[in-house]
Amino acid sequence: MHINQNYLNLKDSYLFSVIAKKVKEYTATHPDKNIIRLGIGDVTLPLVPVVVSAMQQAVTEMGAAETFRGYGEEQGYAFLRQAVCGYYGKKGVALRDDEVFINDGAKSDLGNILDIFSPDNTVLIPDPVYPVYVDTNIMAGRKIIYMNGNAANDFLPLPDKNIRADLIYLCSPNNPTGAVYSREQLKAWVDYALENDAVILFDSAYEIFVRDKTKPSSLYQIDGAKECAIEFCSLSKTAGFTGTRCGYTVVPHELKRDGAELNKLWLRRQTTKFNGVPYIVQRGAEAVFSDAGLAQINGNIDYYLQNARIMADTLTKLGIWFTGGENSPYIWLKTPNGMPSWDFFDFLLEKANVVGTPGTGFGVNGEGFFRLTAFGNRENVLEAMRRLQSVGIAT
Amino acid sequence: MHINQNYLNLKDSYLFSVIAKKVKEYTATHPDKNIIRLGIGDVTLPLVPVVVSAMQQAVTEMGAAETFRGYGEEQGYAFLRQAVCGYYGKKGVALRDDEVFINDGAKSDLGNILDIFSPDNTVLIPDPVYPVYVDTNIMAGRKIIYMNGNAANDFLPLPDKNIRADLIYLCSPNNPTGAVYSREQLKAWVDYALENDAVILFDSAYEIFVRDKTKPSSLYQIDGAKECAIEFCSLSKTAGFTGTRCGYTVVPHELKRDGAELNKLWLRRQTTKFNGVPYIVQRGAEAVFSDAGLAQINGNIDYYLQNARIMADTLTKLGIWFTGGENSPYIWLKTPNGMPSWDFFDFLLEKANVVGTPGTGFGVNGEGFFRLTAFGNRENVLEAMRRLQSVGIAT
Repeated sequence: MHINQNYLNLKDSYLFSVIAKKVKEYTATHPDKNIIRLGIGDVTLPLVPVVVSAMQQAVTEMGAAETFRGYGEEQGYAFLRQAVCGYYGKKGVALRDDEVFINDGAKSDLGNILDIFSPDNTVLIPDPVYPVYVDTNIMAGRKIIYMNGNAANDFLPLPDKNIRADLIYLCSPNNPTGAVYSREQLKAWVDYALENDAVILFDSAYEIFVRDKTKPSSLYQIDGAKECAIEFCSLSKTAGFTGTRCGYTVVPHELKRDGAELNKLWLRRQTTKFNGVPYIVQRGAEAVFSDAGLAQINGNIDYYLQNARIMADTLTKLGIWFTGGENSPYIWLKTPNGMPSWDFFDFLLEKANVVGTPGTGFGVNGEGFFRLTAFGNRENVLEAMRRLQSVGIAT
Repeated sequence: MHINQNYLNLKDSYLFSVIAKKVKEYTATHPDKNIIRLGIGDVTLPLVPVVVSAMQQAVTEMGAAETFRGYGEEQGYAFLRQAVCGYYGKKGVALRDDEVFINDGAKSDLGNILDIFSPDNTVLIPDPVYPVYVDTNIMAGRKIIYMNGNAANDFLPLPDKNIRADLIYLCSPNNPTGAVYSREQLKAWVDYALENDAVILFDSAYEIFVRDKTKPSSLYQIDGAKECAIEFCSLSKTAGFTGTRCGYTVVPHELKRDGAELNKLWLRRQTTKFNGVPYIVQRGAEAVFSDAGLAQINGNIDYYLQNARIMADTLTKLGIWFTGGENSPYIWLKTPNGMPSWDFFDFLLEKANVVGTPGTGFGVNGEGFFRLTAFGNRENVLEAMRRLQSVGIAT
């Protein structure tokens, strides 16, 4: 009997626990200070009314014999898969409803999708990055190659013809950098994947923040992507579902490797190891994609984007370099005067009573950078920006 | 780029699609016949009132800024983990709340738990069995050894000292056979696991049907089990959650292999590849474990057990050998006169217009056996039993 030895290669992530500890210690010695948290990646606005009312109705249905629902299809109810197809249709992407798999959030599927690929595949992952891409591949013992994001490439690394990879993670708009790939840049990635027989795992969890119509919000807006990419999306940030749990994964029928349709492999994985998302939640998700739902959630997105704009304007005024802040809820800033990420964290906490996230938490290339998020409330964002301007962090 | 080659070793399961096709063809040619389905493993009674009202309140909370909840802990809210501990306490099993992991159903965790074990482990699986145990291990390329369930051992196979296994699947009350292990039999398994450094994966999804207090409803009622077993349970059958999705996995701190606490490995797996169960659903699940909730769900279990008793009485009257029918919602019967499972399926469909599940769908030892389930409504069960007695299937 042995455990999976790859787990011994995982590094413990102390990022958020260290942040919590530092904040706790500071507030213990400075109980009168009003700390503003701009570090969390969680939403704060409640579920929109159409979603609440759809879920209320679904709960009522589950309590009556005539309308009760037992097992649904593992890949989700057709009503929701069709609603997702309708949403993609508005982006100019035609999907069949059996190419859409409803899940309990992008994080689950981003990890679980690896089941259908050989552990011998080489994986290409940007750095800095959402830590889940790295950890799930360490767990499976895959060889990982990192590609550098940095100020020189605006944290949007492009393919290197000299590197050979089988699985490629891309996230646009990016977490943590907020950077958004252009159409031409994504075309370069699709071309690279097609040439190298690679598969792109495209994390589009922040697609709804893309307001600039010249930027793609789905990789399938790029010709050829259906032959080389799986797309993961979530309602967590789109509709405030971080505690309600629903997302979707798209696996086009055109995507084949080793002569097998990946769609069929993924269906087999899900029917064997998953039992679907709660009916109640799927009804709530369906309501998101209604005309009223899209209007209501876009009102919330407007609010978060306005927060991002306020932060971006302040950083511009202070002469601080950053990515994100538009088409994204994240701002990724270069620390003033080359301060290490954690030093800047301490500085901001002590001088401005503002909490953010040190860039080193997202990879080695994050050193000297810092993440702010736009999910807080307006008053706090305005107050935090006033403080930033008064503590002398200009470069 | 290669796919996971182990997927090519999976057999397609045509069981339920063949059943559906046969029933469809029969009804097309006999539109006047009233078909009674006693084959499905899905519940039919709606969610109980305390669950409905807890979820209504939770939905309302999610729609208001002051009570909205974002990300919860991946392993579940403390209020629910503590409720599960309370439930185990009533069985005489003391658990700490960080030994309980809330999930979206036993099926997910029964598959995902394999992540933390080496692919080199040998797996011991009873036959007949719930197909998920086999398929998830084929996907991971593990060596599988089968142990025979048959009429001679009442479909309750016991350890064989000559066989060496690392992971052992046990399900009691069993799906599909309805058979329930005694305390002594489970003690033999715990002893075997401890001697062989093996880990038992104990599926207790049907524990609430155990009304005979001399039979264990948790493996942890057996001394030593915490050092060698992980237990998986679900509210699917317990509380009609097949479409609402909530269960729990117990990983005791005492359980260590290769010097590592499996609890810590599983926590790492879940925090990396899972984002928790919806808050709304966790509030519904919490209500299940309240005094009112337990009273209400046990009313439903009484109803299903009475269905099982009616079927068992009929089979006894007809002189047909079976397991289950008490302490279980399943009845596993020997087909009359050694009829092959599918022949008996056709016979029942055509002569009694009753649909069940051929035993061969659960493994080679299922040939010559047949599964009936107690989840239908009383009227249908009574009518089906009247038909069985009138079509001359006595042995």
